[in-house]
Amino acid sequence: MGQKNELAHRMAGKTIKLVDALGDPVTGKEIAIKQTNHKFLFGCGIFDVIDVANKNVPAERLAFQEEKLDKFLEVFNAATLPFYWGMFEPEKGKPRTKELKAAAQWLKERNVAVKGHPLCWHTITAPWLLDMSNEEILRAQFARIERDVTDFKGLIDTWDVINEVVIMPIFDKYDNGITRISKDLGRVGIIKEMFAKTREFNPGATLLLNDFNTSINYEILIDGCLNAGIPIDAIGIQSHQHQGYWGREKLEEVLDRFSHYGLPIHFTENTLTSGHLMPVEIEDLNDYQIPEWPSTPEFEERQAKEVEEMYSILFKHPQVEAITTWSFSDDGAWLGAPAGFIRKDNSPKPSYEVLKKLIKGDWYTNVTGKTDDNGKISFEGFLGDYELVCGDKKISFHLDKEAEIVQLVI
Amino acid sequence: MGQKNELAHRMAGKTIKLVDALGDPVTGKEIAIKQTNHKFLFGCGIFDVIDVANKNVPAERLAFQEEKLDKFLEVFNAATLPFYWGMFEPEKGKPRTKELKAAAQWLKERNVAVKGHPLCWHTITAPWLLDMSNEEILRAQFARIERDVTDFKGLIDTWDVINEVVIMPIFDKYDNGITRISKDLGRVGIIKEMFAKTREFNPGATLLLNDFNTSINYEILIDGCLNAGIPIDAIGIQSHQHQGYWGREKLEEVLDRFSHYGLPIHFTENTLTSGHLMPVEIEDLNDYQIPEWPSTPEFEERQAKEVEEMYSILFKHPQVEAITTWSFSDDGAWLGAPAGFIRKDNSPKPSYEVLKKLIKGDWYTNVTGKTDDNGKISFEGFLGDYELVCGDKKISFHLDKEAEIVQLVI
Repeated sequence: MGQKNELAHRMAGKTIKLVDALGDPVTGKEIAIKQTNHKFLFGCGIFDVIDVANKNVPAERLAFQEEKLDKFLEVFNAATLPFYWGMFEPEKGKPRTKELKAAAQWLKERNVAVKGHPLCWHTITAPWLLDMSNEEILRAQFARIERDVTDFKGLIDTWDVINEVVIMPIFDKYDNGITRISKDLGRVGIIKEMFAKTREFNPGATLLLNDFNTSINYEILIDGCLNAGIPIDAIGIQSHQHQGYWGREKLEEVLDRFSHYGLPIHFTENTLTSGHLMPVEIEDLNDYQIPEWPSTPEFEERQAKEVEEMYSILFKHPQVEAITTWSFSDDGAWLGAPAGFIRKDNSPKPSYEVLKKLIKGDWYTNVTGKTDDNGKISFEGFLGDYELVCGDKKISFHLDKEAEIVQLVI
Repeated sequence: MGQKNELAHRMAGKTIKLVDALGDPVTGKEIAIKQTNHKFLFGCGIFDVIDVANKNVPAERLAFQEEKLDKFLEVFNAATLPFYWGMFEPEKGKPRTKELKAAAQWLKERNVAVKGHPLCWHTITAPWLLDMSNEEILRAQFARIERDVTDFKGLIDTWDVINEVVIMPIFDKYDNGITRISKDLGRVGIIKEMFAKTREFNPGATLLLNDFNTSINYEILIDGCLNAGIPIDAIGIQSHQHQGYWGREKLEEVLDRFSHYGLPIHFTENTLTSGHLMPVEIEDLNDYQIPEWPSTPEFEERQAKEVEEMYSILFKHPQVEAITTWSFSDDGAWLGAPAGFIRKDNSPKPSYEVLKKLIKGDWYTNVTGKTDDNGKISFEGFLGDYELVCGDKKISFHLDKEAEIVQLVI
């Protein structure tokens, strides 16, 4: 029972009372209770959806991407879609709203929760901001939030509001509009403004602060934000481990330091590769550019072990509510790294199988049983969506920590 | 005029109209205008005042300390007195209020501004806090602030409210009551509470946040505090340079990063030694303990140059309002370092002479002239207190940036 106890926060016990249309208990019936979705968010960055939903690539490529997405949908229930301003609206006034809406809709229809990433960031931001005064940049950033958050409300209700603020005002690789205004507003100031604006246009949304910096800098920044009354719903932590798996000790130490705010934690951008490690002396991961970064059988085994350990540690931590692996596939992966769960030819790596076994096996509930004389059956399962099957009838229900007894009519 | 322009923020022009008791202009009179004090605070940690004011050391030692203080008073107009809780109230309920009051009074009578250091810190804090619950520790800390800030109001109206908060909750050298409560409250939280309590009992006081950490950590912490509405009056920056002078570039970079909040900056704890440098691999300066750390002629020259450059850079920066050198004398200096302006035998080092020449020479105003037909005389001088001497009469006045004309009656 060790594992069950450690995962008690992910589970609930429930008694179902099955009744017929007249309200009479359905007794002594064989039934099956099958989990159909997790409450926990297991996600990936899955930008291929844009091509697939809009069918705007050649047929062969489309078929390949559809196959990729089938593999994604077999395991995952959450997706991150790109809203990098410079790509979303490369020409001022011509946002790619239609294409992104189609993608978000495609995911929603398949029961996949969607997060938009990000609303404000100094990297890949709109180049045309550089022609503006700081006052105009801030107005444009506000207008961008108002437009996109409004347009996607109902399709996207989770946003990485602002990204990588720790370095934002000191980012000096190239001039950009967002670094400019972050210098004016200060770190906490720009976070405050962006959260307020996002909240204004989607009051019920889940709003994240996101950063790759897991040092004391980010801790102090969060501390300041919360004391300044900024309504952060979840702390986003990036964990691109191209230079090697953090390991249990660092991971637990990070969890420990970022959990004391009492807020949910999302691992928003996780990377564990199945290739050689990036040299540790590289400071900005973007600086490592090599022509070929192969996935090898040996490193695929390592990746599988690391994925298994890391996901298990995070799933056990009561405050973690989401894990997103940044690149679902090696095809199109960031930095060309073999960072996916599947290879460039869509074949699954061991990490894919290991994670599928956890998400759809060890952490998934499937029980059968018989209703008692009062039409009742009790079970314990992982939180999420369920289907009760009784003969040729199916009823959907939700398993949460709330009511212990639920009455279902078949 | 180069220097004058660079120091324009430290100066003011003033026209004095001299009248007699009947209100008639005193015309064609030779007068002297002598600066008697700086507006800028040139301070030292000068804990010997406690012994001298209370005369609680043997006569020989007392004479030596009095001689030391004479040298101090020749140059400086500000003093930091120690309020380390563990030393101020080693036994609960028996604070050294009387001795510290005598010291503050002694300084006040000599026209020296006094700062209390610090009200809350995890180092040298009261050991008896360890027997308390966290709730009791916080109550005791509040009560300590209420008592001491009230007791010293009028004598001490400038406080280092809280010290070294960046490391406070992660300080792990030894258990202590303040680290315990800082973990509960968070960094910004504990700063907020301590500032609110101090402000409550001395609304007009100048309240500082103080830290040795000049990294992005401290920047973000200040940013968070200001966004959380904490009324910080001045940013305190420690600059113990036992491991080598920062140099112009780092100093200007620190000034640049910490000036954009628009707040006054105090260099609260400056050290430039006249001895060999502490090895750079020492992380916590307190870990460097050697039996003898001599002051040498060669290094005294280096110290004098560094003092001259550093004080000049800081005096030129419009937001810096105070520089405190932590150890006035090698006698009793922190870590036994040759950190003073005077040696263990009270003889002045070159740094003393260099600084005296700046503070009481280059940056001090002494002019003579004759009143015109309307009894007026105009001059430009460094901000501060002045004495106008006319024959055998003296009048005190204050030079500030306010009114351009002032009428003095002789």
